[in-house]
Amino acid sequence: MKLLKEHIRHSGRVIGNDILKVDSFLNHQMDIGLFQEIGQEFKRRFAENKITKILTIEASGIGIACITAQYFDNVPVVFAKKFSARNLNSEVYESQVFSFTKDAHYSIRVDKKYLTPNDHVLIIDDFLANGNAVLGLLDITKQAKCEVDGVGIVIEKSFQSGRNSVLEQNVRLESLARVKSLVGETITFVD
Amino acid sequence: MKLLKEHIRHSGRVIGNDILKVDSFLNHQMDIGLFQEIGQEFKRRFAENKITKILTIEASGIGIACITAQYFDNVPVVFAKKFSARNLNSEVYESQVFSFTKDAHYSIRVDKKYLTPNDHVLIIDDFLANGNAVLGLLDITKQAKCEVDGVGIVIEKSFQSGRNSVLEQNVRLESLARVKSLVGETITFVD
Repeated sequence: MKLLKEHIRHSGRVIGNDILKVDSFLNHQMDIGLFQEIGQEFKRRFAENKITKILTIEASGIGIACITAQYFDNVPVVFAKKFSARNLNSEVYESQVFSFTKDAHYSIRVDKKYLTPNDHVLIIDDFLANGNAVLGLLDITKQAKCEVDGVGIVIEKSFQSGRNSVLEQNVRLESLARVKSLVGETITFVD
Repeated sequence: MKLLKEHIRHSGRVIGNDILKVDSFLNHQMDIGLFQEIGQEFKRRFAENKITKILTIEASGIGIACITAQYFDNVPVVFAKKFSARNLNSEVYESQVFSFTKDAHYSIRVDKKYLTPNDHVLIIDDFLANGNAVLGLLDITKQAKCEVDGVGIVIEKSFQSGRNSVLEQNVRLESLARVKSLVGETITFVD
C-alpha cells in the first residue's frame, strides 16, 4: 500500500535494527485520514468474505479496527482486554501472551458472549513482529469455535518470526506494508 | 441523546448501585453505527469550536475518539498511554491517575511532540465517574499549554464526583447520557 509506505518512510524512525517507531501517525498520534485508506484497503483484500466481526487487541489496534469496520457494513468490533479488571465478566476466553516490548507475560481475554461459532472473524492489528498477540487472538477464536477469514496487519516486520507463525496456523494473512529490514536509518520493504 | 439512552436501557447491566456494564456496545464489543451517531452528536455540540486535536486515553476511549474525529475534518487523535513501555520516548508529559476499577495508581503519558500551545483540544472518553482519568488528561494539557475547548463524555455517572471535579477546572463538559442513579435493575437518567 503505497500511501502507507510513504508515511513510514517519511515519519517512521528506526531504533537499532529492529524497532520502527511510527507513533506520529499509527499508535500514539493517529492519522484518521490514513486510517480510512487502510480500512478501505482491508475491505478490498477481504471483499469476497462475509465478515461478521472484527477482533483486535487493546490498545493500538482499536482505532484501526473501528475505522475499518465502517467499510464492512459496520460489523461490531471486539477488542481483547490485556489486564484483569474487577468488573470483567468471569465467563471469558483467555490466552497467555508474551510481550517482547514490555518483557512480560500477560493474559488476554474476550467475553464469551461476543464470539460465537457463527462468527466469521477478521483479526486486525497495527503491528506483526513475533506474532504473539495475533497467536493469542487465534487461540481465543479456536476456543470460541468461530471461523477466522483472515488476519489484517498494518505493518509487518518480515524479518521477525510472526509471519511464519501465523501462516503455520493455516490462516490468510494480509499485511499492508512488509518491512524487510531496518538498517541505520534505512527502511527497506519486501518487493 | 435518545439513541444512546435506549442502548443503555436495553443492553446495560447494573451491578450493585454504582457499576453500569455496557460492554456489549461501548467498551468491549463496540457498536460502530452507534459510535458514528455519537461522533456526529459531539460535532453538533462543538460545532462552533475550531478543534485541532482529539485527546483520549487507552483503551476504551480510542474507538469513540477515532470515529468522532471523522466529523471534525479528520483531526489527529492522540491517546495517552497508561503503562510505561520500553520504546516510549522519554520526552513526555506525565500525570498520575488513581483507578477505582483497578484499585491502583498508574501514570498516563503523552509524547511532547503531539500536544502544542497552538492546539485546540477536545478531550473524549467513554465514561465519567470519579473523573480521575479526565483530570489527568487536563493536567497534561496544562503542561502542554494547549487550549481545551471541552470534554466530551459518552456516559456520565452523575451521582459520582467527576462532573463537579471537571467543572471546577472551568472546562466545558458535554455528556451524552447522564445517569442519575442505578438501583436494582433500574437506570434513571438526569432530566
